[in-house]
Amino acid sequence: MTKKYRYKIIIEYDGSGFYGWQRQNDLLSVQECLENALFKFCQQKIEITGSGRTDSGVHALGQVAHFDFCEALDPFEIMSALNFHVRPNKVVVLDCTEVAGDFHSRFSAKQRSYIYKIINRRPPLALDDKRSWHIPIKLDVEAMKEAAKFLLGTHDFSSFRDSKCQAKSPIRTIDKLTVTQENKQILINISAPSFLHHMVRNICGTLQLIGTGKYKPEYIKEILVAKDRCRAGPTAPPQGLYLVEVVF
Amino acid sequence: MTKKYRYKIIIEYDGSGFYGWQRQNDLLSVQECLENALFKFCQQKIEITGSGRTDSGVHALGQVAHFDFCEALDPFEIMSALNFHVRPNKVVVLDCTEVAGDFHSRFSAKQRSYIYKIINRRPPLALDDKRSWHIPIKLDVEAMKEAAKFLLGTHDFSSFRDSKCQAKSPIRTIDKLTVTQENKQILINISAPSFLHHMVRNICGTLQLIGTGKYKPEYIKEILVAKDRCRAGPTAPPQGLYLVEVVF
Repeated sequence: MTKKYRYKIIIEYDGSGFYGWQRQNDLLSVQECLENALFKFCQQKIEITGSGRTDSGVHALGQVAHFDFCEALDPFEIMSALNFHVRPNKVVVLDCTEVAGDFHSRFSAKQRSYIYKIINRRPPLALDDKRSWHIPIKLDVEAMKEAAKFLLGTHDFSSFRDSKCQAKSPIRTIDKLTVTQENKQILINISAPSFLHHMVRNICGTLQLIGTGKYKPEYIKEILVAKDRCRAGPTAPPQGLYLVEVVF
Repeated sequence: MTKKYRYKIIIEYDGSGFYGWQRQNDLLSVQECLENALFKFCQQKIEITGSGRTDSGVHALGQVAHFDFCEALDPFEIMSALNFHVRPNKVVVLDCTEVAGDFHSRFSAKQRSYIYKIINRRPPLALDDKRSWHIPIKLDVEAMKEAAKFLLGTHDFSSFRDSKCQAKSPIRTIDKLTVTQENKQILINISAPSFLHHMVRNICGTLQLIGTGKYKPEYIKEILVAKDRCRAGPTAPPQGLYLVEVVF
C-alpha cells in the first residue's frame, strides 16, 4: 500500500465570485478553483475535501480543507504554489500543514463558527453591498439579543432546517450565539459542532424578523416547538455570512 | 437677484470604481456620477462642490459636498432621488440637509479625518484587496506609534507634499495621528483642518517604512527638517485610504 501524505489548508475567500464551495458543472466553485490550482502545481487530479459546503455568495475567513499527496512536500511550498496558481480568483490559502492520515476536515471538526453581518440604516450600501445584509428599517437589537438566548443549547432545529437538508437528526447544539451592535453594524456570532442545511441563515433571518418587532423574543420558543420551517423567519441572504473558523 | 437654496450632502463611495472625486474628461468620477444623478432628478446642470478631491481608488465613508437649487426642495426627496439615479455606481448619499447660503463644503470645513487600513500578513488578500494595503513583511507597530508622535502638531510638511501640490503654504497642523493594531489589521487614524496633496498617503507610506525597521522612529524629525520629498517614504497606495468625516 502506498503511503499517503495528508495536508490541511485554511482558506479565505470572497464568496461573491463563486457558486459556493462545492464543485459543480459549469459554475465556478471554490473547490474547483483550488483543485485546478493544485493540478497546475503537481499535474495530478487530487480531490480537496472541505469542512462543509458554503452557499453561493457566502464568504470564508477560515474554511478548512484537506487533500492527499503520494509524496511528502514542503507545506509552505504547497501554500505558495496554490496562492500563485489560484489567481485571479479571490481565494487565498492562509496556512498549510501536514496532518495525520486520519485527520478529516469534515468529520474531525469539533466546532464551526460563523459571523453574520447586518448593516442597519436607511441609505443603500456603497462599500458593503456584497459583504453584508442591508436592512433599511430600524431593528431592535435588544430584542434580538433576548431572542438569541432561547436558541442556545441543544434543541430540535427542524424549524430552522432547509427542506433539502439530508442530515439524519434535526438535533443540534448551539454553544455560542451573540448579537452585538456598533454604530449601524449588527453582528451575529454563532458557534456549534455542526449545523443543519441553511440553519445559520435561517436563524439570522428569524432574529432579524424579531428585530423588526413583528414577534416578541419569546416567539422563538414556539418556533422551536412547532418543528415547522414555515413558522421561522426568512433565510437571510448569503452575502452577510462569513465562515470564520473550524476548530478540531 | 434670484434666491438660492443650498444643500449639503454626506456621501459614501467605493473608490475602486472611480477615477477619484473630481470630474474629468472620459474617466468616471464620483462628482460626475452625482451631477448626472442630479440632472436626471431636476433636468438642470448643477455643479456639486466637494470638501476636497480624493484620488483614484480612495474610498469615502463621509465625503461632504454642496450644491444650489433655485427652488426649495425636500432634502429627503433629494437624497432618495440621488440614490435612485446614481445606481448602479457605488455611490450613496447618506444624508441631505438645507444649509445657509454661505456654507461651503470646502472652505467652511474645520477638520478632515481619514483612516488608512493596512493588512499585515504574508498571504495575499481575498476579501480586502481593494480595501486595504497588503504588507507581507512583519511591521513593528510600536515603532510606527513612536514615529507618529513626531508628526503631531504644526510643522512644515514639505517632505510629505506631492510635487503637484498647489497649496500656498506647506505648514499644516495634525490634531490626531494614531496607529492601532487588531490581529493582522493596522489602522492609521489622522485628522487635520486640511492636508497637502498626497500628504496622508505620504505619511502612511513613511510610517510603513519605519515599521519595516529601515529607519528609527526619530528619523521623522530629520524628514521634517529636510523639507525634501525624497527623504520621506513612498506614497501609500490609494485603496487603503478612507475619507471618514468632514467637520464644520
